[in-house]
Amino acid sequence: MTTPTVRPGEASRIADPDEGISLDELRLAARNHGMPLEALRYDLTPPGLHYVLVHYDIPFVDSATWRLAVDGRVRTPLELDLAALRDRPSVDLTVTLECAGNGRARLHPRPVSQPWLDEAVGTARWTGTPLVGLLADAGLLDDAVDVVCTGLDHGSDRGVEQDYQRGLAVTELADVLVAYEMNGQPLPPQHGAPARLIVPGWYGMASVKWLSRITVLAEKFTGFQNEVAYRIKADRESHGEPVTRIKPRALMVPPGFPAFMTRRRIVEAGPVDLFGRAWCGTGVVSRVEVSVDNGLTWADADLGGAGSRYAWRSWSLRWAASPGDTVLMARATAEGVTQPVEQPWNTLGMTNNMAQRIPVTVR
Amino acid sequence: MTTPTVRPGEASRIADPDEGISLDELRLAARNHGMPLEALRYDLTPPGLHYVLVHYDIPFVDSATWRLAVDGRVRTPLELDLAALRDRPSVDLTVTLECAGNGRARLHPRPVSQPWLDEAVGTARWTGTPLVGLLADAGLLDDAVDVVCTGLDHGSDRGVEQDYQRGLAVTELADVLVAYEMNGQPLPPQHGAPARLIVPGWYGMASVKWLSRITVLAEKFTGFQNEVAYRIKADRESHGEPVTRIKPRALMVPPGFPAFMTRRRIVEAGPVDLFGRAWCGTGVVSRVEVSVDNGLTWADADLGGAGSRYAWRSWSLRWAASPGDTVLMARATAEGVTQPVEQPWNTLGMTNNMAQRIPVTVR
Repeated sequence: MTTPTVRPGEASRIADPDEGISLDELRLAARNHGMPLEALRYDLTPPGLHYVLVHYDIPFVDSATWRLAVDGRVRTPLELDLAALRDRPSVDLTVTLECAGNGRARLHPRPVSQPWLDEAVGTARWTGTPLVGLLADAGLLDDAVDVVCTGLDHGSDRGVEQDYQRGLAVTELADVLVAYEMNGQPLPPQHGAPARLIVPGWYGMASVKWLSRITVLAEKFTGFQNEVAYRIKADRESHGEPVTRIKPRALMVPPGFPAFMTRRRIVEAGPVDLFGRAWCGTGVVSRVEVSVDNGLTWADADLGGAGSRYAWRSWSLRWAASPGDTVLMARATAEGVTQPVEQPWNTLGMTNNMAQRIPVTVR
Repeated sequence: MTTPTVRPGEASRIADPDEGISLDELRLAARNHGMPLEALRYDLTPPGLHYVLVHYDIPFVDSATWRLAVDGRVRTPLELDLAALRDRPSVDLTVTLECAGNGRARLHPRPVSQPWLDEAVGTARWTGTPLVGLLADAGLLDDAVDVVCTGLDHGSDRGVEQDYQRGLAVTELADVLVAYEMNGQPLPPQHGAPARLIVPGWYGMASVKWLSRITVLAEKFTGFQNEVAYRIKADRESHGEPVTRIKPRALMVPPGFPAFMTRRRIVEAGPVDLFGRAWCGTGVVSRVEVSVDNGLTWADADLGGAGSRYAWRSWSLRWAASPGDTVLMARATAEGVTQPVEQPWNTLGMTNNMAQRIPVTVR
């Protein structure tokens, strides 16, 4: 496999400095959706509130005829139906997933793609069978390098027609699941029914949905989603670095109540219990700081528990709100790395974890 | 109750002719979501794919302490907990709901509000108790005119702080449910848990979510959502007509596969089975026509069944696709009224049912 050729006319685009959101971006925003931030209240994101990013169409899959193939550099290729998959040893794992493009629409200038603000996140309890067990049964050959997972979603991106595919190194498979339940229910169509990959700790693009084939390669996979789409690139010409694990992020339930059109918050003066969640794919969130004065000063929030090492943990802080306008902020620290207050920027708008800002009016 | 005063500075806005989608509109699009049109395949929209429009925040309601009050012009005010509501006579009803603002972002110039394209629709089987039975038990007084339903969602719109409230005439209550299940499951938070109104045939604004109070008035209700927000107004100064029942609309599953960013469709030449749904809140859809040449000619689709008189019905048409670019269209007719091909327009972008257009490339 070689790196796909990208037609220049269909390369990704950066919006002009004052350009409004385009119809193309709106079409994606109307189909896909974030998690309304008030849903940070729930340990497990309720059905329909978890973020959804579908690259092409949601495939209409008949689970009775669906099959999962395991092939490539294995001793014994496998083919499993859903019953066979469900008969395998199963694991429950609570995982926070976040889209690699979360925060993209807050960037200046704005990379043109799915225009997320802060809300492309969700946490679910996934039930499935460990991928390493499946591969052990198939018998991984000694020259195995990458595992390529193929979904049933088909479309084109920047001129390249494709089934959605992602490669993952055989050294990165710890805790990876082939999942068939979400919060104790069969996967809903938009979350990959009847089965999908869950790659804990990684941005969502790794967790291939509508999984149909797992192919072991003796070389690095160089398909579109690894080599072109999910890259951290300072400029359009560079090849950049691959998007991998989730950077630290904290988000807060916006306090008070909103105005319909601007979402501006009105908060009553007095004690306000700020509450949120924080997560990181490279390690444990050890600190959440909150600013109630637009980043001038920061206070440590109390940290709560997490559903697993891959799930967000809660945090809270009591704020003595006094009348006037201000901006609330939150930032997480994990493994010594703290979320930036100023924007990071890259040409595709990937892995931006700039601290959340919530303008509020206290009355 | 009187008509709320609207602060002029916060009145609804019309976008400039070439103005892109604003950040305010994007914020709403990122929270709320339409039904991806490929989900038209399902008789009942699966969890999480039904459209969602939340005016303010999704309230965090404890169903154990939740109560529903029935008061105003009744002989015996009632207060019910969830168990009492569930003990009442129950009805299952399959209903297609559509947002009154569906299609708004396709208008030129564009009224600035939730920027729907075509997808603000969904169909569910709702379980609940008839509202007329509840009111009969409370004993409707002879002077009853309107029933005002109040939700627990609180916010401000155009300067008016409010709990979400809608009035409905006592003559319009046939088949109206106080619903507590959606497709056989307790309501999810974003659909009004633990109980909501379902007003079959009406645009979604009538189906008040997070229902907390049902108040009978001896006069017409003149609250914000009836008198200001959901109006069909030719210009900003007029009071206009209220938004009521759903106009006819047909939608098609976009055939072929999409490009990620533009959603442009690629279709293989040969026979293509076009499939969709059509619905109307004022009567039965009697005809669906499809154009495969951008509206130049129209052919009648075959009509399928519907889950109830308030639910969409399926339609299909085999298309002999030949190579080239074209635009597919569909339009429904109900009670002698056919969807327009040219845009209707009103200042708030309400009840627009301009026929769907899908640009495709056949190869």
